[in-house]
Amino acid sequence: MTASTSTALDKPYLAIDLQKVVSNIARIAERLKHHGVFFRPHFKTHQCAAIGELFRPLGVSAITVSSLDMAAYFADFGWQDITLAVPVNPGQLHAINAIARRIKLNLLVDCAETTRALDSSLEVSCPVWVKVDVGYGRAGVKWCDERGVLALVRLIQRSDRLNFAGLLTHCGHTYACRGREQVNGLFEEGRVRMLGLKQLLADRGITARISMGDTPSASLAENFDGVDEMRPGNFVFYDVTQSMVGSCSVDDIAVAVACPVIGKYAQDMKIIVYGGSVHLSKDAFTYDGQRLFGQLALHKSGGWQPVPIADAQVFSCCQEVSQVKVTRPVFDQIKLGQPVYILPAHSCLAAEIYPRYITTDGQAQERFRLYPSQMG
Amino acid sequence: MTASTSTALDKPYLAIDLQKVVSNIARIAERLKHHGVFFRPHFKTHQCAAIGELFRPLGVSAITVSSLDMAAYFADFGWQDITLAVPVNPGQLHAINAIARRIKLNLLVDCAETTRALDSSLEVSCPVWVKVDVGYGRAGVKWCDERGVLALVRLIQRSDRLNFAGLLTHCGHTYACRGREQVNGLFEEGRVRMLGLKQLLADRGITARISMGDTPSASLAENFDGVDEMRPGNFVFYDVTQSMVGSCSVDDIAVAVACPVIGKYAQDMKIIVYGGSVHLSKDAFTYDGQRLFGQLALHKSGGWQPVPIADAQVFSCCQEVSQVKVTRPVFDQIKLGQPVYILPAHSCLAAEIYPRYITTDGQAQERFRLYPSQMG
Repeated sequence: MTASTSTALDKPYLAIDLQKVVSNIARIAERLKHHGVFFRPHFKTHQCAAIGELFRPLGVSAITVSSLDMAAYFADFGWQDITLAVPVNPGQLHAINAIARRIKLNLLVDCAETTRALDSSLEVSCPVWVKVDVGYGRAGVKWCDERGVLALVRLIQRSDRLNFAGLLTHCGHTYACRGREQVNGLFEEGRVRMLGLKQLLADRGITARISMGDTPSASLAENFDGVDEMRPGNFVFYDVTQSMVGSCSVDDIAVAVACPVIGKYAQDMKIIVYGGSVHLSKDAFTYDGQRLFGQLALHKSGGWQPVPIADAQVFSCCQEVSQVKVTRPVFDQIKLGQPVYILPAHSCLAAEIYPRYITTDGQAQERFRLYPSQMG
Repeated sequence: MTASTSTALDKPYLAIDLQKVVSNIARIAERLKHHGVFFRPHFKTHQCAAIGELFRPLGVSAITVSSLDMAAYFADFGWQDITLAVPVNPGQLHAINAIARRIKLNLLVDCAETTRALDSSLEVSCPVWVKVDVGYGRAGVKWCDERGVLALVRLIQRSDRLNFAGLLTHCGHTYACRGREQVNGLFEEGRVRMLGLKQLLADRGITARISMGDTPSASLAENFDGVDEMRPGNFVFYDVTQSMVGSCSVDDIAVAVACPVIGKYAQDMKIIVYGGSVHLSKDAFTYDGQRLFGQLALHKSGGWQPVPIADAQVFSCCQEVSQVKVTRPVFDQIKLGQPVYILPAHSCLAAEIYPRYITTDGQAQERFRLYPSQMG
């Protein structure tokens, strides 16, 4: 591991390795194609029209987003079939109509009250999915509440404007897994629960598509029988959390926050970088019982070289600076004023912070500034 | 506790109670004036020119910031004496010169290498402080390293362009305290250590001012003897972390993220709000052994009414949504599509996210969009 010469850096920026992005996308597209599953990638991770274009040559025509502003943005770039993968906010019916008039906007509901509000306010018809909770425990009708699922489906079917599309879930609890076997186990449990509900509906003459999510399952699961579509998002960049799950290797991580080194403390064998929670997000992962805020990487020509976590721990993350405990050989390669890289604990949150990506060949990628310019 | 009627909300925004801001500022200004300490507030918490103006009638003319971009912003609004309270990044010498030509820019150093880089690059003279670590353990020469402090001070004194200003520290470890007594204990320890170094320098004919920071100490400490200036920042808004420390009451917290309710789960006695880590930050505090991401408040005419944490726990914070476990009486007051408020775990990070504040009387406060528009 040798750090190549780099130049001094004035402030943190988000670096992107486009080759890694392209190969991460190709790998998942290929996997899902092999399993005959429709690929509806979640664009909340990159939120970037230019990165969205990388999906088109692979035949991707439908996407997922996590807010209406994001839907409007991608609609502007020609995406005509978008799923808003958050249960409908009854306070946002006006904005929903504005977008549903432009594109095919797929919506999620998890209760009768919101469904009725949608039915009485929608001015165009929309595909509506019932959000199901197969074990993650966040949002959705519980998979075991068959009566609840059926009642909600029938309420949708009685509406003129709501077209029942199917059952949708997100196995977010796979993020806590370690290794393919655990991910497979949770995904299989979720799949079986979704297929049980699909059969329940089929027995009553109702056809339902099955939509599932999550990057660990898309990266590692082996049995997709009966699953109609997958909506992973994080895989486009991956991150340290995903490398801990086993969804990717550290070398697959495609974004890193470049941070100037502003302190070297030989006594403590630590470095301080200009780059804190406002540059990385405050998200963390657990390694050996310790909360860590990213993984250090050193500059190398055309990109970065990850340092094993055992040799460098980003153990503290304040507003503007972070501290990294390092071994002597790593310490000696690091120079004041020069950049190191921090691979994010959670790439979705880190990418969200920046207005643009800087590619490792130095070109700027303009990025949609979703938050906060459209907030408040 | 009764929720007044409010209207449906489309998406999260940052609400500010200006009356609370004004009284938080007045209280700290009064305390420091009483103790004869120069008040150099840290503006990183609000990053807003309009809020900065609230300090002027109290005689405040000098401020603290955490980045050069922030210094440039406040210089544009007439602030002529600014301390950049992060050790100098040797990769940013060009930008330092650009600002130092416009205003009195106070700089921090913690090592000889950066001091030499400054000396050989500065084009105008600047006050330079030696950053001291009195126990927090982040940045600075350790208080017990008398030889290190003395060597650095002498290096500064030998320069034509660097004017030695004094010793500066931040007792960030007070954030982990609970109650006035603990805060007083840590602040007193830090104060004594700083005065020891001041005496060390005085014995050699060197005059040093003493600058200390942190909101818990500014709010609760009782003995400021020998401390020349204080640089608290968070107090302008406070937050749940500070209310746990005892620096403020929950009613003093002056900002809250308004979030539409998008899910009510009676079975689990929980609500789901549109408002996740991209709206609140992922920062948390610990309550009864649980990591919580804010404190719930309900809408009331002209503001919000905090709910005791025992009755509502913001226990999960995903990218776009958060989950709040509530008691039945709280649950019954909450309506789908209507706003609830989340008092931030850490107001500096929550405020950082937004382009503007919305006052509780509905007027918009424009806010400097420091990050990310100037990043990358």
